[in-house]
Amino acid sequence: MGMKESVLPLVVSQGLLVILFCVFTTYKDNSDLSKYGMFQDVHVMIFIGFGFLMTFLKRYGYSSLGFTLLLGSFIIQWAMLCQGFFDITEDYKIELGLESLYRADIAAASVLISMGAILGRTTITQLLLMGAIEIALYCTNSYLGSKILKVTDAGGSIFVHVFGAYFGLAVSYVINRRKNGKKESGNSLLESTYTSDLFAMIGTAFLWLYWPSFNAVELAGAQQRRAVLNTYLALAACCVTTFACSQLADRDRKLDMAHCQNATLAGGVAMGAAANLAVGPGGAVGPLIESHLKTPDTCGVHNLHGLPGVLAAIVSALMAGLASEDTYGLDFYQIFPARKPEVGSVLEPRTAIGQAGYQLLALVVTLVIAIVGGLITGE
Amino acid sequence: MGMKESVLPLVVSQGLLVILFCVFTTYKDNSDLSKYGMFQDVHVMIFIGFGFLMTFLKRYGYSSLGFTLLLGSFIIQWAMLCQGFFDITEDYKIELGLESLYRADIAAASVLISMGAILGRTTITQLLLMGAIEIALYCTNSYLGSKILKVTDAGGSIFVHVFGAYFGLAVSYVINRRKNGKKESGNSLLESTYTSDLFAMIGTAFLWLYWPSFNAVELAGAQQRRAVLNTYLALAACCVTTFACSQLADRDRKLDMAHCQNATLAGGVAMGAAANLAVGPGGAVGPLIESHLKTPDTCGVHNLHGLPGVLAAIVSALMAGLASEDTYGLDFYQIFPARKPEVGSVLEPRTAIGQAGYQLLALVVTLVIAIVGGLITGE
Amino acid sequence: MGMKESVLPLVVSQGLLVILFCVFTTYKDNSDLSKYGMFQDVHVMIFIGFGFLMTFLKRYGYSSLGFTLLLGSFIIQWAMLCQGFFDITEDYKIELGLESLYRADIAAASVLISMGAILGRTTITQLLLMGAIEIALYCTNSYLGSKILKVTDAGGSIFVHVFGAYFGLAVSYVINRRKNGKKESGNSLLESTYTSDLFAMIGTAFLWLYWPSFNAVELAGAQQRRAVLNTYLALAACCVTTFACSQLADRDRKLDMAHCQNATLAGGVAMGAAANLAVGPGGAVGPLIESHLKTPDTCGVHNLHGLPGVLAAIVSALMAGLASEDTYGLDFYQIFPARKPEVGSVLEPRTAIGQAGYQLLALVVTLVIAIVGGLITGE
Repeated sequence: MGMKESVLPLVVSQGLLVILFCVFTTYKDNSDLSKYGMFQDVHVMIFIGFGFLMTFLKRYGYSSLGFTLLLGSFIIQWAMLCQGFFDITEDYKIELGLESLYRADIAAASVLISMGAILGRTTITQLLLMGAIEIALYCTNSYLGSKILKVTDAGGSIFVHVFGAYFGLAVSYVINRRKNGKKESGNSLLESTYTSDLFAMIGTAFLWLYWPSFNAVELAGAQQRRAVLNTYLALAACCVTTFACSQLADRDRKLDMAHCQNATLAGGVAMGAAANLAVGPGGAVGPLIESHLKTPDTCGVHNLHGLPGVLAAIVSALMAGLASEDTYGLDFYQIFPARKPEVGSVLEPRTAIGQAGYQLLALVVTLVIAIVGGLITGE
Repeated sequence: MGMKESVLPLVVSQGLLVILFCVFTTYKDNSDLSKYGMFQDVHVMIFIGFGFLMTFLKRYGYSSLGFTLLLGSFIIQWAMLCQGFFDITEDYKIELGLESLYRADIAAASVLISMGAILGRTTITQLLLMGAIEIALYCTNSYLGSKILKVTDAGGSIFVHVFGAYFGLAVSYVINRRKNGKKESGNSLLESTYTSDLFAMIGTAFLWLYWPSFNAVELAGAQQRRAVLNTYLALAACCVTTFACSQLADRDRKLDMAHCQNATLAGGVAMGAAANLAVGPGGAVGPLIESHLKTPDTCGVHNLHGLPGVLAAIVSALMAGLASEDTYGLDFYQIFPARKPEVGSVLEPRTAIGQAGYQLLALVVTLVIAIVGGLITGE
Repeated sequence: MGMKESVLPLVVSQGLLVILFCVFTTYKDNSDLSKYGMFQDVHVMIFIGFGFLMTFLKRYGYSSLGFTLLLGSFIIQWAMLCQGFFDITEDYKIELGLESLYRADIAAASVLISMGAILGRTTITQLLLMGAIEIALYCTNSYLGSKILKVTDAGGSIFVHVFGAYFGLAVSYVINRRKNGKKESGNSLLESTYTSDLFAMIGTAFLWLYWPSFNAVELAGAQQRRAVLNTYLALAACCVTTFACSQLADRDRKLDMAHCQNATLAGGVAMGAAANLAVGPGGAVGPLIESHLKTPDTCGVHNLHGLPGVLAAIVSALMAGLASEDTYGLDFYQIFPARKPEVGSVLEPRTAIGQAGYQLLALVVTLVIAIVGGLITGE
């Protein structure tokens, strides 16, 4: 596993983090803890959910749990600093409050998704390095998307799932190429056992259960309520559909836990970008059927995070193209700030079609940054 | 496992749900998320609790988890529609808010309890059909009990546990009879292993821990505080008593996880109907001793949900017979709305004894609907 | 396992608890449920966290889970009475509210820590007796420390972890001496397996995740926010450091789950006493590195609870010695009530150095009560 040589990088990077925290951070004064419960749900998703999700690979039970804990612990500290950098005060202080914690957890999700694409083929040091670079790019891309392009992506489908999946796949591509196509001893490493599948269900179930918190934690008011309801319904509908599809694809007529595990969760990803939009409870249980018909055959991050994330981005563009002030009321300009007419400005506010275009632009930007970043990081 | 033929029913029923959601549902305007934490606790109980509880049967680890996820996902959607039907607005819309989510989860509990009685002897299609019918009857019975008979049953001991247990046992009875008494290869299917018992403890522990949320989520104010406190104490007291009793019954002098698992939980059921009543902290730790002296010998739903539920109904009748405005203060007419004297009404308000009678009547109605419904569904 | 003879003690002690609850307790009127979410997190830590933490000993999987559930259930009832005794009303009633529940859970932690030191070498009856005595001493020591010595210990590092660890070690010492050094068949009992280590990670992860709730549940306002943030950072920083150190100590170059499990958690203990103090986010990620350099070699309570607790007490004394009204603002006299100048009092208020001395005094008192109490209880 090549862990010995990771001591020095670990100690050095933790030492650097300590110094950076001492110099640049302070407590935020008016932070409140009303979202503490949702934060803890997200926290459980990251460390229990992702940690146990990958234990279905019987050879990687320890790695999956241990690396999730280690990489996650490192990343949440680094992400707090990177994210804080974009909101730094005039006297160069990053103010830390509860929102720093859940935003750091959400950032960690993108790195753990990437890790899923390369688990077992890298050393800890490489993972740490990848995570450190990925977080820097993640924060830049999220800032670009939400602040400059003014795009809505409540559940992070674009900024977290698409970004994490294609970054990881790009890194994975480079790693494979450098190994000259030398395959690992292959399938034996990817085998699962009855017990390892049950452990993986712990991760799956907690991800599935707490996903509404993940999609809603950064929102408030009616948007937050809609995100909870839509995600809950999307997950339930997607779960029923997945079971049906996985049986069609399966020659053994058996209940396949891997299909359960992955496809069940794709509903949460697919609902992410549009979770706070008024898709209507009917819409939330609807479009997901399509997304799975062709996907229950592998268990990679492409199917679980990549494709559903892209789908979610397209749905969010569609919803943005249809959105009007009538449906959303007072929340409208909070969700789509770029559409607000500004007094005394010569610029026209953005149109519905324009907003839809920007949603797709954010998707493209994310894909480019993720893939180029991943390829370079892989090298 | 006969899963192949379930594809069509799954796709058709999910398709129907999508259409019904599109036509009949809308977002509720003034819903609030202050009970979100308790909702998530109940959500964990349903899918982690019930899912892992039955993994102690080593042959049914997958089925238990997979069926809980599938059946639960289907049922929560269907229950939202059925429950909403009784509160439908004038323009035929069901308004969905947070309370729809936890009420749907609670309804799913009754179906999962029934599933526990027939696990391993039915196909998925039969389970789905049973669930669909059971939910319709469940909603009718709950409406009858709480709105027409005006009975109090905070923790759902009568409407959820008694209903689910006897419905499932009635279905089980019919299934067994039709098989002409052909027994399954029997005990080998019911074996547990060291590992499977540890998995089951995950389910047990989360059910045990979050039970106060289950009994309190539909309440408010002093009733809610009492429900939390009473359930917490009842579970602790019941747990100690169970350990003692299971050792009396056990020839092997070993700690039997199955006893732990089932009997520990019975305390929550037994406290359900009376959780919001002023049994007093002393009462909460008290009457449970009796309920276990004869019951630690099997691990069926009868012992875990049926009997304790009936006991709870009787306790709730007793408490209702003793209740007076002095003890309960302002909450009194909220708990027992039928006892409120109505201005200008010629009808006398219900007496304490009358309320006790109605509590028992609701138990009888529940038993009749559950057993008759279960027998017909079984056919 | 010698369980048969525990029936009578269990029944008798539960019977006594019922009587005491009936006579002495009542519902608290103005209790509120705003901390219900944090209470549930602590509840999960006690029963899932401690329960699964010790399943890494493959021979003690059942015992660890079963005894945690049994002992915990008994202790939380007994602790509610003991703690209530110090706040008893004039008409000899203990008023029970939500704070009684989480304070009882926290008290149970100290007993479960002690149990960790003697697991597998005692009968249930002995564990119950030890728990009953320990809780009485625990309540006395906590009362002495926080009310008489007026010491701050938000996360219970001194009163819970140091007390529990050294009480357990003292009991363990006596038990070992009485057995005339007869060693158990030894290491075989302490073996872990791949599966048992994965189960233990469930406990580890939930303890790690919910620790901020443990350190913050008894606080409010800015102190509570600081405790959440400090604990979150300390746990993350400690986790990274631990991984590095455990690799230095390990000849096998393998990821050792036992190191992960124990050392990861020590961060929460070490941050406990000072969690609400303004160590600064930088401080929270900092001093922990030292605490681990020499400790990744065993997996006992000494390393996980004892040493980090002592360290935490020293840090809290240091912080108390540096604390001034400028840094803490309005919270200052809430955290250090003894430093408040009282109008009309001839006594000078306590100085910063005085407060630091009292923090250390509380540590010494705790050590004395724990060790003497443990030695006597062991006999």
